[in-house]
Amino acid sequence: MPATRAAFRAVRADVEEFLFEYAALLERGEIARWPDFFTDDAVYQVVARDNAESNLPLGLIYAEGKGMLQDRAYALIHTEMYAPRYIQLRMSNTRVIAVDEPYITAETSYLLLETLIDEPTRVQQTGKSFDVIRRVGDQLLFKERKCVYDTVLINNCLVFPV
Amino acid sequence: MPATRAAFRAVRADVEEFLFEYAALLERGEIARWPDFFTDDAVYQVVARDNAESNLPLGLIYAEGKGMLQDRAYALIHTEMYAPRYIQLRMSNTRVIAVDEPYITAETSYLLLETLIDEPTRVQQTGKSFDVIRRVGDQLLFKERKCVYDTVLINNCLVFPV
Amino acid sequence: MPATRAAFRAVRADVEEFLFEYAALLERGEIARWPDFFTDDAVYQVVARDNAESNLPLGLIYAEGKGMLQDRAYALIHTEMYAPRYIQLRMSNTRVIAVDEPYITAETSYLLLETLIDEPTRVQQTGKSFDVIRRVGDQLLFKERKCVYDTVLINNCLVFPV
Repeated sequence: MPATRAAFRAVRADVEEFLFEYAALLERGEIARWPDFFTDDAVYQVVARDNAESNLPLGLIYAEGKGMLQDRAYALIHTEMYAPRYIQLRMSNTRVIAVDEPYITAETSYLLLETLIDEPTRVQQTGKSFDVIRRVGDQLLFKERKCVYDTVLINNCLVFPV
Repeated sequence: MPATRAAFRAVRADVEEFLFEYAALLERGEIARWPDFFTDDAVYQVVARDNAESNLPLGLIYAEGKGMLQDRAYALIHTEMYAPRYIQLRMSNTRVIAVDEPYITAETSYLLLETLIDEPTRVQQTGKSFDVIRRVGDQLLFKERKCVYDTVLINNCLVFPV
Repeated sequence: MPATRAAFRAVRADVEEFLFEYAALLERGEIARWPDFFTDDAVYQVVARDNAESNLPLGLIYAEGKGMLQDRAYALIHTEMYAPRYIQLRMSNTRVIAVDEPYITAETSYLLLETLIDEPTRVQQTGKSFDVIRRVGDQLLFKERKCVYDTVLINNCLVFPV
């Protein structure tokens, strides 16, 4: 059990560092590199908490495979459909739920803060991510990333990935 | 001193993991299990920062002993006095102040985010917890938990534990 | 590489603990001790993100040397130019960018929450700090601290250090 605790703790640090890198990339707006954080067969979805808790499959975003993420990234880069803004993506309360190498199951809270020019910073979205992360050599990659957001009334289009 | 630093660091990780589990339970709304995070003789209180800094004993919530926490949990579960909402309880900036096994004294910042249906997510409450945590075997339990909140104007009844 | 990862991880914990102490001091309002977190030749600046990304040198605050920080602290303590408020300074997503002992380069997200009496808590400012930290014996000190804030429309004077 102490061995397990120490092992879980090291994995928590791995996951935190991976998520912090992921957040930093999105904050810098480097959307083109966003799919690089996922495995080729990754499933990425963003779903409202009430749907998730009712086991409704309806999600705001559903992407299966890195190709779909690359399409999405391409669309985001080439469609200027939103006003310029800064975002900050805060990750916290990371809990490692299971470790079955090379897979790690973890839950993390996220907070997306958004600042439009000449407006105060506001909480754009808050939620939790349920991640299955695959260790590939020295690297971690999302195998599954399911973001469940509390914020139903999102003040703007949810085009930005979390 | 380096030994102390390493020991403090391991304890910080213990405390963080304990607090993250505690937050996850409250976020899932499992109030019935909330008292299980406390020792039988625990003291739990929630007090405004201005009162706390004036050493005024007046608190919004004061519970002595696990029985009082169980009563409170029961009341919360069986009284539908608040509109449905989602909450997120973020823990951060955990600092271990003293370690005198089996007791750990620690301070942590918390942020309670609240989302009512069809409303944007808002900061419901922000504050710090001053905790005395008791190690019981592999487990941690609150011996004392004092939450000091900055937010005097709470937009709704503070029935939800933090 | 694993050695590097373990070393980086220990440094991340060092930096987090240093930043949490720094935040706690500011939250308690102990401005007089604020300059003690900096080296004698430290450079401290607070700059808007759009300026920082355009490499414009214009900052809201620029202080070179501990003396200037002490002057600033003195002014803050002795000038009651702002309404009483509580602040909380949350540090998260700390990433160690480089370690070249005794210097550590790190990036951290910050969130300044502000509560005026009889008002709800609000996000006063959000941003990132780009820090060069110097290890001096057992202690860490800021050699450079550059805070880049997203929040251009700050609801009040930005007199409070971050």
